[in-house]
Amino acid sequence: MVVAGLLGAGAVSRAVRAAAPAAPGISLVTRMPTVAADPTRVPPPIHRSHAIHHEVTLEAREVRARLADGCEFTFMTWNGQVPGPMIRVRQDDTVTLTVRSAASNERPHCVDIHAVYGSGGGAMATMMPPGGMRRLFFKCAYPGAFIYHCAVMGMDEHISRCMFGMILVEPHGGLPTVDREFYLGQHELYTREPLGSSGLLHFDADAMAREAPNFVLFNGMVDGLTAGGLGAMQARVGETVRIFMVNGGPNLTSSFHPVGNIWKRCWPQGALAGAPSGYVQTQPVAPGSCFVGDMELPVPESIKLVDHALSRVARKGLMAELDVTGVADPALFRELG
Amino acid sequence: MVVAGLLGAGAVSRAVRAAAPAAPGISLVTRMPTVAADPTRVPPPIHRSHAIHHEVTLEAREVRARLADGCEFTFMTWNGQVPGPMIRVRQDDTVTLTVRSAASNERPHCVDIHAVYGSGGGAMATMMPPGGMRRLFFKCAYPGAFIYHCAVMGMDEHISRCMFGMILVEPHGGLPTVDREFYLGQHELYTREPLGSSGLLHFDADAMAREAPNFVLFNGMVDGLTAGGLGAMQARVGETVRIFMVNGGPNLTSSFHPVGNIWKRCWPQGALAGAPSGYVQTQPVAPGSCFVGDMELPVPESIKLVDHALSRVARKGLMAELDVTGVADPALFRELG
Amino acid sequence: MVVAGLLGAGAVSRAVRAAAPAAPGISLVTRMPTVAADPTRVPPPIHRSHAIHHEVTLEAREVRARLADGCEFTFMTWNGQVPGPMIRVRQDDTVTLTVRSAASNERPHCVDIHAVYGSGGGAMATMMPPGGMRRLFFKCAYPGAFIYHCAVMGMDEHISRCMFGMILVEPHGGLPTVDREFYLGQHELYTREPLGSSGLLHFDADAMAREAPNFVLFNGMVDGLTAGGLGAMQARVGETVRIFMVNGGPNLTSSFHPVGNIWKRCWPQGALAGAPSGYVQTQPVAPGSCFVGDMELPVPESIKLVDHALSRVARKGLMAELDVTGVADPALFRELG
Repeated sequence: MVVAGLLGAGAVSRAVRAAAPAAPGISLVTRMPTVAADPTRVPPPIHRSHAIHHEVTLEAREVRARLADGCEFTFMTWNGQVPGPMIRVRQDDTVTLTVRSAASNERPHCVDIHAVYGSGGGAMATMMPPGGMRRLFFKCAYPGAFIYHCAVMGMDEHISRCMFGMILVEPHGGLPTVDREFYLGQHELYTREPLGSSGLLHFDADAMAREAPNFVLFNGMVDGLTAGGLGAMQARVGETVRIFMVNGGPNLTSSFHPVGNIWKRCWPQGALAGAPSGYVQTQPVAPGSCFVGDMELPVPESIKLVDHALSRVARKGLMAELDVTGVADPALFRELG
Repeated sequence: MVVAGLLGAGAVSRAVRAAAPAAPGISLVTRMPTVAADPTRVPPPIHRSHAIHHEVTLEAREVRARLADGCEFTFMTWNGQVPGPMIRVRQDDTVTLTVRSAASNERPHCVDIHAVYGSGGGAMATMMPPGGMRRLFFKCAYPGAFIYHCAVMGMDEHISRCMFGMILVEPHGGLPTVDREFYLGQHELYTREPLGSSGLLHFDADAMAREAPNFVLFNGMVDGLTAGGLGAMQARVGETVRIFMVNGGPNLTSSFHPVGNIWKRCWPQGALAGAPSGYVQTQPVAPGSCFVGDMELPVPESIKLVDHALSRVARKGLMAELDVTGVADPALFRELG
Repeated sequence: MVVAGLLGAGAVSRAVRAAAPAAPGISLVTRMPTVAADPTRVPPPIHRSHAIHHEVTLEAREVRARLADGCEFTFMTWNGQVPGPMIRVRQDDTVTLTVRSAASNERPHCVDIHAVYGSGGGAMATMMPPGGMRRLFFKCAYPGAFIYHCAVMGMDEHISRCMFGMILVEPHGGLPTVDREFYLGQHELYTREPLGSSGLLHFDADAMAREAPNFVLFNGMVDGLTAGGLGAMQARVGETVRIFMVNGGPNLTSSFHPVGNIWKRCWPQGALAGAPSGYVQTQPVAPGSCFVGDMELPVPESIKLVDHALSRVARKGLMAELDVTGVADPALFRELG
């Protein structure tokens, strides 16, 4: 029995750590930590050719945290981060999942895992009140990148508030080798107050029913994964990088595009059993689905990962940056002035 | 000349039959029959290796029927059911289609069939007033699962009111064998009154122009294909099942997912000419398109078929259940308490 | 160094020419030219087996033009046409792109080209004020049909106002030969005034944030590519035709369908590196993406190209027609009366 593929229970993401030692003079709200997961916290690739067993723990935590400067929100999370911890296993591996609900929570929670054969993807078996705990055994019988998410009554609100993450089930033979891997999650937030408001924002169920969010985000934070936020992702010219993206939704399809680059190889909906698609500019990613895509980095640039439904970028807070540093290649790209 | 592949003109779906013998004391509206087609009414697979001719009749019928308990709506249907009868033929088969419009109808109707080479997919040739009748000959020259739908001026309203169904054109060589097949149709309904209202609901063309429905449904009924509605679909552990789904729309893309299972093999947009995709969790199905997907059933469970834009499930009436009974497999899935 | 693959700087589309010699007595607004590009203005297929260099010029032009009869709008365009000129090159070709901004413009502009490895797809390098000019060198390292679009702050408005077009990078070996090729662009327009209004319409940024357009269009004109507008596209029975479609968005996914026909062969999202899909009825095309699809024309018919989210056709001005003339084939399709 091996413990693997998961952030430890006490792990604190870089994002949260970075926010902690804020300087005096910064307002309480600005100093408040965010829920944004560190996109570099990706479990390592699997090189085994045999199945193993994993012990995984997920804790449902309702936390008030910073959504943007001067603005906060009551998130629902797995392990205090958005997206929830990335779990990485191999096809035919087995998992004992312990699901806990923090005693301070106000709502019931559970988890539906798309990698699972079984009622509700485990939702019925893991239903728990605040302070509760449930355990589930399952085998990962088929490969793919799958979402897990809360699935209680009113699950769309719980997912919008951020109760989703990814379990990656690597196929026999694994994935092609790349130099760096990143992990992020898109979702939309329905609030009464528009982007730019300050103070504590309130959830708006009517807006959710209309599928009209005020925020569309990566990792639960306005412009969080940028230089102006918690920092851009980093890579070097000549490397290959992989993006794991889970779209929690609850309602919107993402049109996922890397500005200034191309999905050289990608697996639509996270379906790793089939051959990847080649050189896709913009890939639809359904709500309740995932995306795995690889890029080459032949030139230095700032790659912006976006949903190409661009009003979500221009007006709703969605942005993630990948800074690629290194030597220019004027045979590929150069300004002529 | 052979008559095949279609419910007879007088066929009454299980759904309608089930509603008929309501107990005294139930209100008129509750006792009112629904338009929900029986999802098990699927024409049998085709084993022929030669082409044949089919005589098919579709009747446009405007019917007032039960949308939910205590709530009714004036549907437009093909043969009184939603989705319209599933027509099943083989590539290179020919069809003589007779289209009738019930004399009691108030609007003109016609049919556009995506399996047809010809103006409007047959729409111009089949335009008819109430009481009218038109006949059309066509060859099914290419394989696939295709929508047919009304296509008069204002067709979006007619389709929202349920004038759509599927014609399956099996490829040469047929489809892989499965144990059971089911057939259902997603669509959205635009009404002035919200879900939960009682009495006769009214169509809202402005809401349709905004693509903001109050109802998203399978088979024209709130939670119709569930144990609490007309009954869940049934299967046994160890069987394989196929879902034929037609998305009438008129406007929304479905993100089609089987909760607690996986599309082991599916044909996006119903395109049967190509190889299927493997192990897809959530498949986009465009409005005016179809889906064919197969599942394995290794464990007993209640599989919920949903559009993973989950506010449509949580707040707009979309749900279909498939109950799988049999012996548990604790090596795949078990509650640990 | 070769100049190729582009409309000349002074080229005037058929659409604009057609509108020019309006009869006296027609109101000023009706006589106003449109921005609709001629869908037949497609650069020829490439038969080279070696790389060449291209000099391409794109000019940002803000122009007041006819949106519908009696109704006008201030468009932002590339070279005065919508979509912008189609640029056609071969994988490994290089391009020197000169981008100009007309002195009469009021806003800054730039261009992001999805075929480019480099920051912003060239957006930073091409940022220019009214009257400005910038030059950029790039290599087309990978094949596909790609969108180019303005990418300044507030880019969603600039794209909605029509600053988008296609660059086709043919793969080594080229595309399958067809008899005719057409080029068109879908996008949505957010205005305060509804369809049917007269006079100058005003942009509505709030409606854009809600992704609730009043117009969804091909080529910047209500029903422009129809017999009642600037004229239908034309082809003959027995020919094969290819449709190049770029979806500017900025927000809506198109469910692209040819009424009365089928995408016999198509490349989802314009990804030409992979094998095409076969016999697809309705293909999702993400905003910020492209589509390449081929049809056979075995019968005479009027093919209508639509987004099968049909309220956009029925209520928002989206329509393009392809008239196919020739001898009927009663073995495939015939009215029986």
